[in-house]
Amino acid sequence: MSAGEFELINHYFKTAPDALTPATVLLGIGDDAALLQPDASQALVVAADTLVSGVHFPADAPAQEVGQRALRVNLSDMAAMGAVPHWFTLALTLPKHWCDDTRRQWVAEFSRGLKACAEQYQCHLVGGDTTSGPLSISIQMLGQVPANAALRRDGASVDDFVLVTHTLGDSAAALALLNNHVAAADHACTEADRQYLQGRYYRPEPRIQQGIVLRDIASSAQDISDGLLADLGHLCAASDVAAEIDLATLPQSAALQKFAPQQALRWALTGGDDYELVFTVAEHKMPLLAMAQAQGNIHASVIGRIVSGAGVHCELDGAPFSVDTTGYRHF
Amino acid sequence: MSAGEFELINHYFKTAPDALTPATVLLGIGDDAALLQPDASQALVVAADTLVSGVHFPADAPAQEVGQRALRVNLSDMAAMGAVPHWFTLALTLPKHWCDDTRRQWVAEFSRGLKACAEQYQCHLVGGDTTSGPLSISIQMLGQVPANAALRRDGASVDDFVLVTHTLGDSAAALALLNNHVAAADHACTEADRQYLQGRYYRPEPRIQQGIVLRDIASSAQDISDGLLADLGHLCAASDVAAEIDLATLPQSAALQKFAPQQALRWALTGGDDYELVFTVAEHKMPLLAMAQAQGNIHASVIGRIVSGAGVHCELDGAPFSVDTTGYRHF
Repeated sequence: MSAGEFELINHYFKTAPDALTPATVLLGIGDDAALLQPDASQALVVAADTLVSGVHFPADAPAQEVGQRALRVNLSDMAAMGAVPHWFTLALTLPKHWCDDTRRQWVAEFSRGLKACAEQYQCHLVGGDTTSGPLSISIQMLGQVPANAALRRDGASVDDFVLVTHTLGDSAAALALLNNHVAAADHACTEADRQYLQGRYYRPEPRIQQGIVLRDIASSAQDISDGLLADLGHLCAASDVAAEIDLATLPQSAALQKFAPQQALRWALTGGDDYELVFTVAEHKMPLLAMAQAQGNIHASVIGRIVSGAGVHCELDGAPFSVDTTGYRHF
Repeated sequence: MSAGEFELINHYFKTAPDALTPATVLLGIGDDAALLQPDASQALVVAADTLVSGVHFPADAPAQEVGQRALRVNLSDMAAMGAVPHWFTLALTLPKHWCDDTRRQWVAEFSRGLKACAEQYQCHLVGGDTTSGPLSISIQMLGQVPANAALRRDGASVDDFVLVTHTLGDSAAALALLNNHVAAADHACTEADRQYLQGRYYRPEPRIQQGIVLRDIASSAQDISDGLLADLGHLCAASDVAAEIDLATLPQSAALQKFAPQQALRWALTGGDDYELVFTVAEHKMPLLAMAQAQGNIHASVIGRIVSGAGVHCELDGAPFSVDTTGYRHF
């Protein structure tokens, strides 16, 4: 760490009073590495996700929203494993050409968003680094889960039901809105609807609690970052099965329906960035799922079944439906 | 993970035969997160370091060297804690404008360097992501150390000796060479010397084994990434002490002396990227250190003493020596 890096980190990130540092953090920010004390009875869960300006968020996105989003997409990986998040490191790359004021203002706002989210989900920043370069944020998240209870992608079996949490397609709508790909006059949605959609993009809700509940219910799970079609495809490939889904059952928000009724289905199917969970449940576990739904611990819709074969097959109104894209590709 | 990301990772990174996967990796690359089983009797050590093209390595650096260097600078953080490295994640950002061939070729070379280094230091890639954007590499390293044996920055006491491992300044010389800041005709060093210096920059030797030996000997330690003066300054600040160092004792390689006798001292003092360890040893532990040196388990030079006060004070030939920079600043 350089002197400049030190000042920045100390000022904006190392501000939590010691009283708020959990006992599992033996040594936090400021040394060559952090020292953590994991729970010996659990497996360690590790994921990393990078957000690049202009690719994973608009270049003019509010820094506070970027802080929220950077942490939430990583928390979503924990949710998809049924894990509880505990600690994270932050690798922050800031443009060299930014003047001191710009940098300080951006980092102050960014750290505000990051901290608010960390507090909400009770996870703790333990280290990382700052470097000069094109604006990007790489977070590595560490969590824990009882080893045998982890939600994996490779557990789906033929006849399992396929479900998704909450609604799909909102983030794709928000991106169209942020990129001005849909003219404001073209649609009937209110300012509140637009706010809702943008919130779904910037502050996706990691389904941590639902992931924990699903440990005993789901046969496989993963989060939807690249679009349902692509991510369910990965789950099927890992499990060596296929899926048949009924497009009429894809859950969509009222805001999405109002915003872009023509594109809603396509976005729900192939739009990325929703960070909902797609998961499978064996038939004999469906009563357990129903009970969790009735208790308000899970919010999910059945969208199809697992069959033998490969790939994801879509049906609409009883007829096969072919799709022109398998979701967002990073390259 | 997208389909493109999947192919790339599967092809170049997920190629280790299962037999080589350690038992501590319950689930590796390919799911939302990795599942690891840490040793219950040890603390977890976590560090992250990002390398940006054009900032932390020349834009035209061989990809294999970038792979080596990216892992080694992170391993150095483990060494500085006295930790043993075990697992790491990789966040790889590749330029969108690269054609498929360029990308594949770069990743193939990069992964070759990364894997060779991972094998040498017995640490295991367990996950990460690839994204589009300006070329950069962010690695998070996970290791273990008995909690009470960790080498921290805040343990130095007045009268402790200050030491550094091996030699300083070689990387700064290599950078001058790579950036053509020193004309080839100006110096007497051979091609072998130049190769040695460049190797010190691209493949710094993380001092893992020496860090382990120092657990019982050193009162504090950290690695030198930003230059001795800056990093010893951080150690002093964390320990609330000052250091007095004798510049005549800074260890320098023969290649550095031949390459740039005029700049050697300055580079040894303020040049970054050496990734040697600077550490302190209480007087009563010096016999233990001498024994470790005699056994070839430590290669270090005494360069000064810890005193009360703040900052790092340099002396040359009995007179105070003031320096115009405190080392490399990222901003």
